[in-house]
Amino acid sequence: MKKSILLLSLFFAATTVKAQDSLMIRKLYDEALVNGQCYENLRYLCKSIGQRLSGSAGAEKSVTWSKKLMDSYGFDKVYLQEVMVPHWVRGAKEEGFIIDGKTRIKVPIAALGMSVGTPSAGITANIVEVKSLKELDALGESVVKGKIVFFNGPFDPRFIETGAGYGAAGIQRFAGPSAAAKYGAVGAIVRSITPALDDYPHTGGTVYAEGGRKIPAAAISTLAANKLSAMLKLRKLPLIKFYFKQSCQTLPDVKSYNVIGEITGSENPNKFITVGGHLDSWDLAEGAHDDGTGVMQSVEVLRIFKAVGYKPKNSVRAVFFMNEENGHKGGLKYAEVAAQNKEEHIAAIETDEGGFTPRGFSFQAIPAAQLKAINDKYKALFEPYEADRLVAGGGGTDIGPLKETIPSIVLIGFRPDSQRYFDIHHTPNDVFENVNKRELELGAGAIAALVYLIDQHGL
Amino acid sequence: MKKSILLLSLFFAATTVKAQDSLMIRKLYDEALVNGQCYENLRYLCKSIGQRLSGSAGAEKSVTWSKKLMDSYGFDKVYLQEVMVPHWVRGAKEEGFIIDGKTRIKVPIAALGMSVGTPSAGITANIVEVKSLKELDALGESVVKGKIVFFNGPFDPRFIETGAGYGAAGIQRFAGPSAAAKYGAVGAIVRSITPALDDYPHTGGTVYAEGGRKIPAAAISTLAANKLSAMLKLRKLPLIKFYFKQSCQTLPDVKSYNVIGEITGSENPNKFITVGGHLDSWDLAEGAHDDGTGVMQSVEVLRIFKAVGYKPKNSVRAVFFMNEENGHKGGLKYAEVAAQNKEEHIAAIETDEGGFTPRGFSFQAIPAAQLKAINDKYKALFEPYEADRLVAGGGGTDIGPLKETIPSIVLIGFRPDSQRYFDIHHTPNDVFENVNKRELELGAGAIAALVYLIDQHGL
Repeated sequence: MKKSILLLSLFFAATTVKAQDSLMIRKLYDEALVNGQCYENLRYLCKSIGQRLSGSAGAEKSVTWSKKLMDSYGFDKVYLQEVMVPHWVRGAKEEGFIIDGKTRIKVPIAALGMSVGTPSAGITANIVEVKSLKELDALGESVVKGKIVFFNGPFDPRFIETGAGYGAAGIQRFAGPSAAAKYGAVGAIVRSITPALDDYPHTGGTVYAEGGRKIPAAAISTLAANKLSAMLKLRKLPLIKFYFKQSCQTLPDVKSYNVIGEITGSENPNKFITVGGHLDSWDLAEGAHDDGTGVMQSVEVLRIFKAVGYKPKNSVRAVFFMNEENGHKGGLKYAEVAAQNKEEHIAAIETDEGGFTPRGFSFQAIPAAQLKAINDKYKALFEPYEADRLVAGGGGTDIGPLKETIPSIVLIGFRPDSQRYFDIHHTPNDVFENVNKRELELGAGAIAALVYLIDQHGL
Repeated sequence: MKKSILLLSLFFAATTVKAQDSLMIRKLYDEALVNGQCYENLRYLCKSIGQRLSGSAGAEKSVTWSKKLMDSYGFDKVYLQEVMVPHWVRGAKEEGFIIDGKTRIKVPIAALGMSVGTPSAGITANIVEVKSLKELDALGESVVKGKIVFFNGPFDPRFIETGAGYGAAGIQRFAGPSAAAKYGAVGAIVRSITPALDDYPHTGGTVYAEGGRKIPAAAISTLAANKLSAMLKLRKLPLIKFYFKQSCQTLPDVKSYNVIGEITGSENPNKFITVGGHLDSWDLAEGAHDDGTGVMQSVEVLRIFKAVGYKPKNSVRAVFFMNEENGHKGGLKYAEVAAQNKEEHIAAIETDEGGFTPRGFSFQAIPAAQLKAINDKYKALFEPYEADRLVAGGGGTDIGPLKETIPSIVLIGFRPDSQRYFDIHHTPNDVFENVNKRELELGAGAIAALVYLIDQHGL
């Protein structure tokens, strides 16, 4: 009898908590949708500041403005966290030509981030096309030496979540140029990592193996890649050459900052929940979806908490990481300092997959039983907001290092709809106009809801 | 012992069926994503034919082309189904001005579909602003008579699914002008039914009460509506007037067609599963998302079945309905003929909410137990495609009449992501360029999967 009364009261307590949670989540969303400020903040970041590549004047301006924005919201702490970052510059606009006998066909290319430049006269060489690193290895030095390797692995459209397609095709951009150099290639041209057929080269970082030769590497648009591949298939190989010229270079590291705002926990000031995105962007556009939306959603979470009067038990931080795109020095620094200061970190949520309609969250490397428990507790609360896909998956580049210094942390990736992201990713089209206000705000609502739940009930 | 063997074999049989289903669904999606034709078909419909308002030359062209397209796919039956449709024409571009004393401020307006025109000199009158039909009723004839009623009820941003917001705000467009006429108004200006703040009037049909007075009615852009409302708040009401002129009219009904393609069922030729959208569109743009995407997904389902060699047991029809926008005569005709021919209809799926990323399907007015059973059977199969929201909700305007003539039918609405639809809905921005290839194809895959499952296992 007593036991059943106890169970019953536990049941009602649980039901009440759930009803309270449900009401609070509705409040958080209403604030995001009715009084949201992330869209106008993003407009400023994109239109009045623009590109923010690490080390650039834009990055510096964005740091100053971001701190001012956080100050204006009256958070408990707002500060800059110093970090040295790479300073890569693109230089003059790149030139690329397919040379077919006496005909030169201009094609859109863009140097890959961190690439070295070509000699000032450019490079002309025969081309060898491969669809994967494995194909490159099979060809080896005898075929590759002295040539430009054309990595033309396509983006597999069968992946439903495009992030998976990006990962699969992306390896040729990250590792291809360095692998080609090993076999004596003089340059690398990489098909843009996108499912879209368009005329834009999609830039993005490449990584040279330590101690290896560095050869110039550029992205080529998918339409131009198709054209080049079709021309090569006509087997006039000795006649088809490629020419490209780029003047990018890496200058000495410069001082920059992560920008951090905090609402200090009312019960556990030394326990933290971090929500963040990256403030830097590639230089070709405004870094709207990558990752202006992420930083503006992060600060919006704290603004929403203040606006609805929610005082978190644990400290909640919005972190604008610097240098995700070409080094993630900001993420490394944040993790290093957190460990030095003996901070306890419950969870970190990264939003760096665009400001599209939220679908849910991915939880990195947690036991299946814990993921099931999280679903049992929280899935129904996200269901009315159509953001209830709580799945296994990555957290994100910026928060990744926290797992090294604070192993108990749970890393979480915000998962918006993935279909359009890689159409504009790292191109001149990543601009404010391609962000939808409601989609952005719904994302802020979803992240605020998850931070609230973790703050109240843990993971 | 025997019983447990029986159970075990049933279990394995069920597991095998599920594995087969899972493989077939993957095949259907792969065909949609790798060899999809709906995007290029849509390009033709939008760019080479364009607007297709019932009774227009565009509508006629689209019928001819659609039949030819279906013929080219070699379906078992392809035919036109005659239907008489309204023939409303917009006439010259509308003019609208806010008159503030001696100042005239031009504002973007567009006649509502089926509205009468103004006298050729236009209408000038004082304005009375209301936010709802209830407010209008409260004011009554003494305030309203001789004035232009300005319906300014906003789109509530708190609805997560924008279709709900459209329904709530839309009532002032559907029923407002007629209600205003009842109280002696001389015209109606209706705030565009969209969550976006923009300079585009969003057209759409209005419905006059039978036997009631007909007053001219136009949509005004949301930004202009805000401006007008702000000016009215300055309480210079006697000074603020509104002028508008439109020359739209309704001509005699014309003959048109539903376009129907069928793969005849191998086991049950007289049992049908219908998948459809509407071929007509408003006249201001290309009817890309409304509803070019829907018709092109519908025919794509049949094409995919043929391409992968799937022979349905029941007859599967793609129906391009005519006249959804201003009369839904095509939907009424299809239901009437189906009943006359004593066809058995298992289910009908309508896709008329845009070609955005699929989220799932809504099932109209089915018992909760049946919806649960559908979820138990099918949800897990849609989960890998992120299209697993199988919820209660509407089917659609075109398939609605089938429920009247064939009560046993299950009506199903395809549910894509709803966030962007009403930004462009019924405006000049509803163009091909705003459709994303992958999103469109994923929708075709999802619908093909559902039709396949219904064909195999019912609902």
